[in-house]
Amino acid sequence: MIIMRNPTDEDILKLLERRMKAASEVEEIVKEIIKRVKNEGDRALEEYLKRFEKYPLSVRELLVSEEEMAEVSVEKDFIETVKIVIEDLKEFHQRQKETSFFFTTDGGSFLGEMVVPLESVGIYVPGGKVPYFSTLLMCAVPAIVAGVERIVVTTPPDEKGKVSPYILKVCEILGLKEIYKMGGAHAIAALSYGTETVKPVDKIVGPGGVFVTLAKKLVYGDVGIDSIAGPSEITIITDGSIPLDFVAADFLSQAEHDENAMSVVITTSKEVFEKLPGVIEEHLQSLPEERRKTAEISTSNFGIIVFTDDLKRAFEISNLIAPEHLEILVEKPFEVLSYVKNAGSVFLGRYTCESVGDYGAGPNHVLPTFRSARFSSGLRVSDFTKKIFVTHFSEEDFKKKSVLYSRMARWEGFEAHARAVDVRRESL
Amino acid sequence: MIIMRNPTDEDILKLLERRMKAASEVEEIVKEIIKRVKNEGDRALEEYLKRFEKYPLSVRELLVSEEEMAEVSVEKDFIETVKIVIEDLKEFHQRQKETSFFFTTDGGSFLGEMVVPLESVGIYVPGGKVPYFSTLLMCAVPAIVAGVERIVVTTPPDEKGKVSPYILKVCEILGLKEIYKMGGAHAIAALSYGTETVKPVDKIVGPGGVFVTLAKKLVYGDVGIDSIAGPSEITIITDGSIPLDFVAADFLSQAEHDENAMSVVITTSKEVFEKLPGVIEEHLQSLPEERRKTAEISTSNFGIIVFTDDLKRAFEISNLIAPEHLEILVEKPFEVLSYVKNAGSVFLGRYTCESVGDYGAGPNHVLPTFRSARFSSGLRVSDFTKKIFVTHFSEEDFKKKSVLYSRMARWEGFEAHARAVDVRRESL
Repeated sequence: MIIMRNPTDEDILKLLERRMKAASEVEEIVKEIIKRVKNEGDRALEEYLKRFEKYPLSVRELLVSEEEMAEVSVEKDFIETVKIVIEDLKEFHQRQKETSFFFTTDGGSFLGEMVVPLESVGIYVPGGKVPYFSTLLMCAVPAIVAGVERIVVTTPPDEKGKVSPYILKVCEILGLKEIYKMGGAHAIAALSYGTETVKPVDKIVGPGGVFVTLAKKLVYGDVGIDSIAGPSEITIITDGSIPLDFVAADFLSQAEHDENAMSVVITTSKEVFEKLPGVIEEHLQSLPEERRKTAEISTSNFGIIVFTDDLKRAFEISNLIAPEHLEILVEKPFEVLSYVKNAGSVFLGRYTCESVGDYGAGPNHVLPTFRSARFSSGLRVSDFTKKIFVTHFSEEDFKKKSVLYSRMARWEGFEAHARAVDVRRESL
Repeated sequence: MIIMRNPTDEDILKLLERRMKAASEVEEIVKEIIKRVKNEGDRALEEYLKRFEKYPLSVRELLVSEEEMAEVSVEKDFIETVKIVIEDLKEFHQRQKETSFFFTTDGGSFLGEMVVPLESVGIYVPGGKVPYFSTLLMCAVPAIVAGVERIVVTTPPDEKGKVSPYILKVCEILGLKEIYKMGGAHAIAALSYGTETVKPVDKIVGPGGVFVTLAKKLVYGDVGIDSIAGPSEITIITDGSIPLDFVAADFLSQAEHDENAMSVVITTSKEVFEKLPGVIEEHLQSLPEERRKTAEISTSNFGIIVFTDDLKRAFEISNLIAPEHLEILVEKPFEVLSYVKNAGSVFLGRYTCESVGDYGAGPNHVLPTFRSARFSSGLRVSDFTKKIFVTHFSEEDFKKKSVLYSRMARWEGFEAHARAVDVRRESL
């Protein structure tokens, strides 16, 4: 754990830099995968399925079948739980829905913007030991609210060639039927460029490991992507008015995520500053082994406890970190909300631990990481629509204003642009 | 020119693919530039200024000085023209402004989304022969409307180490004072990571050549970028009700842009289909030499005239192309607007040539190219704000719902996430 008293901006930035690891070793491999899947289609895809997946399916077996869906069995309260959460997520995301707008000018022109849902989207759901059905929910709900017609899910199969029943059940509840059993860079490539068996999508969303992240960065531009996700992080600002146990538990809820997860506590309370490391240690020791191991490593590398005299300074530091999750565990959190400039999602007060947001109180949990909250936002309905500009210029406005445009075109040296105006002026 | 009757989707896609050029030759150079500017700061930057700029300024001379600004002299009607256009652009972009929202639940929770402007933005204005002041307008106006505090401009100097007076005058009118005389990949790197003399920004917008585009793709994630801009394109759908001269002029207004520009006409009129190539040729020959040369090359490579019997099919083809600009030059354009699924900006009717939109009728002219209108939109106010999610969960809602979240956490195997809920439940 890293303990800091009244750090400067440079102290904080240095710490953050240490966390940015170059992923360049795998870049050449990922490039090759994308190139080959793009050029060779199924032939290359099948080769990579054999090489990288835990169970080597052929391209013909990639799609989850109706039989597989019929076999799915989960705890009884799973369905009930998920249905409630879907409603809460929809409640929030529906308020993000944009509407087309237009206005008319005095001269009779029509200017506007038309909101159109994307036609197709691919959701990448990470595999591995954890069945990330919550991430599937977070990606699918805004796409559904936006009105995307074709929503595709892709996730790597387990050792038996199967997908987690939790993930399949969520697909069933949401009505998603095109589910591919593939992960990694080859899945991203197949969804981006299409193969004989995989129809391409317009945009790919959802987090993944280093292969997936790099692949998304490389295909970006040819298809849309949501963001370049890095390891997860939380910053907790506390004044000592919230029990230490809560702070320690929230600290570890981030730390258990992966070895590069970062948990930062910034406190104005000397008591918290002094006692918190011990309380975290206690909580840590009581975690089941696997979670404990992960949390120990990330806490040791990127667990940070900062003391500052001044609550405003605490927010300055937090804005510099631009954390994915920001908990404001202070007496009157709404009174300091205006201090927040950079953060993905903010959690206010005693009962709003990050888990509440992770699992569906309303806002999305696919959030900007690694300081990208400086310039980007969590996944939103708007990420699943295009805004198309619409102009109808009236004869009257054309008479009045078109001379401005031909002038500007000529100042820029674009004669043919000017002539497209002139030819119409001459016809008047 | 490429002439097609009733083409299939595959015919169209094949044509489009031919246009996608690999930029991989310069990738290694651009990577090196970014790495060195990031690690060595001014020292590397100065080296690249000497190597790549037309006039080798030292880092100390990078900022446009007050004296330079005082010397700027432009045509009298330039200022007047630009001021009118700024007002029209603001009129449109102001309607894109998002507002924070929140709602409360029956249980007393507060859920919302807070709109916060980016703190700093860099606008890249391409250099070369054309003083792209219109692009500067298009990038700066939405940033100003969004409320961005620090707006930086960077543009390469000419042979005398100067910046176009048009660009400087627009900066003056808009109140932009931090203007760097640098272009290319090193400018992108300096703005992304900062050097001793250049303070970094949170996001970089604006189009550029291959070095700039590649650099933007590489820094994406560390800073925000608007998009990966490719060469410009127009698709014109016409039923023969609009004079051929207009169509030909608009076709060429795109073709003059650069050698990779693409102009497509899709028509349901046999007369247009037969006569248009001749009319385009006539117009082409009358252009001044330099514009003519460029337009000749792009017309020969990527000028496409398509006949189809069916207006609906014309829109299908256009949606497949997903053009940056779409002119609908038909009798009743509003009646077919619903057919548009993929396009950056749509221009309806007789008097709405693309130039009208390029030079400031209202909507932005920084638009998705190269089929990216399938998943992205033109530059908007929203590109200059972050949306931060805000959750305050009430004790009542926590009592009622938190058990869902701890369950879900355990189904995913995240014990510490569940415990952050449990520790609060136990305190109740």
